[in-house]
Amino acid sequence: MAYNVFARNCPSRTTLEHVTGRWGALTLSALHHSSFRFNELRRRVDGVSEKMLSQTLHALERDGLVHRDAQPTNPPRVDYRLTPLGQEVAERLLSLIRFVEGHQDDVAASQQRYDSLGGR
Amino acid sequence: MAYNVFARNCPSRTTLEHVTGRWGALTLSALHHSSFRFNELRRRVDGVSEKMLSQTLHALERDGLVHRDAQPTNPPRVDYRLTPLGQEVAERLLSLIRFVEGHQDDVAASQQRYDSLGGR
Repeated sequence: MAYNVFARNCPSRTTLEHVTGRWGALTLSALHHSSFRFNELRRRVDGVSEKMLSQTLHALERDGLVHRDAQPTNPPRVDYRLTPLGQEVAERLLSLIRFVEGHQDDVAASQQRYDSLGGR
Repeated sequence: MAYNVFARNCPSRTTLEHVTGRWGALTLSALHHSSFRFNELRRRVDGVSEKMLSQTLHALERDGLVHRDAQPTNPPRVDYRLTPLGQEVAERLLSLIRFVEGHQDDVAASQQRYDSLGGR
């Protein structure tokens, strides 16, 4: 089957939404550098609520992009890390993120120009 | 200034949200192949409403990623195309999109495994 994100009912569109969603993209990118425990990850992804991070991690785990590693210690220690598939997704996201960060000055200049012309 | 999408108030996070948003990512990717008139683009980005596409194009135009080319004909002809900056963003998005489409079978298999274990 050929998947196509442009088709509204294609399941690949849902996957794309998980990996590019507000918190999905930042969570995958944060995990590219290191595995993290839940609260470490929550500090790294500045602004995410406990509930949203939990939902995001569940969706990414279900998609096979994040692995939840629960150690049978007391108290249990849970680490989140990328699967090989998640690693490849995160690399592509980071390429996009680094480009956006690196060109934010251009974006800000364009916004200023646009606004000075009174929008359109 | 160093921009950082992980910081909640960094303007680069807003730009990232524009380019990875539900309709922003598909709009930029569609325009990578060709310029389009509004209604052509709306057919290509299956499922987008007129209002959402209009808002998406305005934000991307303001960010300097999309150029709105209005011909002084009667009726006026308006084409949307990527700027050089938008082209570079779209290339990175397409790399991600092609990867997601190409691995949707793996994602579906993972979801099935996850659900058969009763989630968690």
